Amino acid sequence: MNDVNFESWSSSELRAVEQALESWVPADTPAALGVAMRYAVLDGGKRLRPLLVLAAAKAVEGQREAAMRAAVAVELIHAYSLVHDDMPCMDDDALRRGKPTVHVEFGEARAMLAGDAMQALAFEVLTPDDGVEPALQARLVSLLARAAGHQGMAGGQAIDLASVGRMLDEASLRDMHRRKTGALLQASVLMGAACGPVDAQTWDALAQYGAAIGLAFQVVDDILDVTQASDTLGKTAGKDADNNKPTYVSVLGLEAAQRYALALRDEAHTALARCHLSSTDHLACLADKVVDRQH
Amino acid sequence: MNDVNFESWSSSELRAVEQALESWVPADTPAALGVAMRYAVLDGGKRLRPLLVLAAAKAVEGQREAAMRAAVAVELIHAYSLVHDDMPCMDDDALRRGKPTVHVEFGEARAMLAGDAMQALAFEVLTPDDGVEPALQARLVSLLARAAGHQGMAGGQAIDLASVGRMLDEASLRDMHRRKTGALLQASVLMGAACGPVDAQTWDALAQYGAAIGLAFQVVDDILDVTQASDTLGKTAGKDADNNKPTYVSVLGLEAAQRYALALRDEAHTALARCHLSSTDHLACLADKVVDRQH
Repeated sequence: MNDVNFESWSSSELRAVEQALESWVPADTPAALGVAMRYAVLDGGKRLRPLLVLAAAKAVEGQREAAMRAAVAVELIHAYSLVHDDMPCMDDDALRRGKPTVHVEFGEARAMLAGDAMQALAFEVLTPDDGVEPALQARLVSLLARAAGHQGMAGGQAIDLASVGRMLDEASLRDMHRRKTGALLQASVLMGAACGPVDAQTWDALAQYGAAIGLAFQVVDDILDVTQASDTLGKTAGKDADNNKPTYVSVLGLEAAQRYALALRDEAHTALARCHLSSTDHLACLADKVVDRQH
Repeated sequence: MNDVNFESWSSSELRAVEQALESWVPADTPAALGVAMRYAVLDGGKRLRPLLVLAAAKAVEGQREAAMRAAVAVELIHAYSLVHDDMPCMDDDALRRGKPTVHVEFGEARAMLAGDAMQALAFEVLTPDDGVEPALQARLVSLLARAAGHQGMAGGQAIDLASVGRMLDEASLRDMHRRKTGALLQASVLMGAACGPVDAQTWDALAQYGAAIGLAFQVVDDILDVTQASDTLGKTAGKDADNNKPTYVSVLGLEAAQRYALALRDEAHTALARCHLSSTDHLACLADKVVDRQH
């Protein structure tokens, strides 16, 4: 791995993703719905999912236009899920990334509609009139819809809702997170991979890589929810604990959770080694970033 | 037109649509999210959109599997929009078709998630692993996503939200309804048409047919909102008037609205006459049903 190369590549790609979001999420929509949509998705976020799409697409030498559309589409799905998740009937969050949440800024009705329209827009972005081969368009839609839907993200959120105040065993916790955040992270990798030619073994290895970092992301989230709170004086205790939600820390304990995150990072690297690809360096760096991040 | 043929065709197709919904909207989902999804979409509704898809597909001798998937997908989008529309932050309706609305039955959080998952499921249904040519899958996704999104249904709902308590002129009212309900009705026709071979003139004529019945549907809705209330003793006044929403009746007056509905029906028939198709009888019957309906 070469961190200098990664940083250079990722900062260039992040600019390209912002430009694509800027041009594909429209401002000129009826009743200014686009203003709420742009507020929700522009100028914020780590863009981990777009980077996973683009790193996988680079590894398979995939089609650029298709990969950028996939990157934008997956970020739109992620962003819409945050808008709906923040609403009073769900997590009731007033702030996100230091800004008022969409429903606080625009009202609940408009927040719900903006989220709905962002989901539709993701599938619009994946099906342009030209520039991407139709069979690839259909494949990308299939991967994204399944990751976003009842067996993926929405299903995981439903488990999350039902599990507040209950203790889950580790298998149930893993199942919830595999769906709630893991499915979209894994789909990001696979959508990027679908943009180029890959053999079956490489596809399976990338799926395993995606599953490992998807789970690692959540384990680290749970760790940071605890360690950030204790490290940062003046902050209230971790949000998940407040909300009485089961987490990897509450189920495994902090040290075991930290060991698990490292094991998942290793699993991701091992999976990459099984790919028949000339370079998976950026995907390897992203696995490290997911586990080593501090926020 | 042959009403006997239409009734026989439509009752057979309605059974097929119910069976397809029954098998493609799953019950076995995480945290019983599917139970709320099925509650929202099964056993209710006139299924006008699926019938439009299937009538258009029949007129163009379109692929059956693709048409049935399109019929289910468009109904899922329609049903999800009703779930979200009924929520307290939108129209706050407690009853739909004589049953408690989804958020009353399952809670607001689950209703929002069920709607979100139904939108994703629509795009899943359109992108099966096999059975439908990938280029047609992509075309159907494109038509549906654009009709559901910020320039279509969601955009129209945003205008609707912003227009409560305001008087709109007829052009603005038409623009709102062309998006809010018209876009999905027109897309139903075009998704059916996309399942078979059509020349450009026929495509344009079917688009015009779809636009005309889309608008007619809403004009008739506005008329029924008034005439049903005055015809049915013991009922409160029309819901739209209660909600202080502009309608075709409030903007044009009742008689002019009734004349407008008939003119739109004629426009739909005229458009069908321009199609290069051997039979558009079922589409013609559906135009009549949209205008002549009593509920």
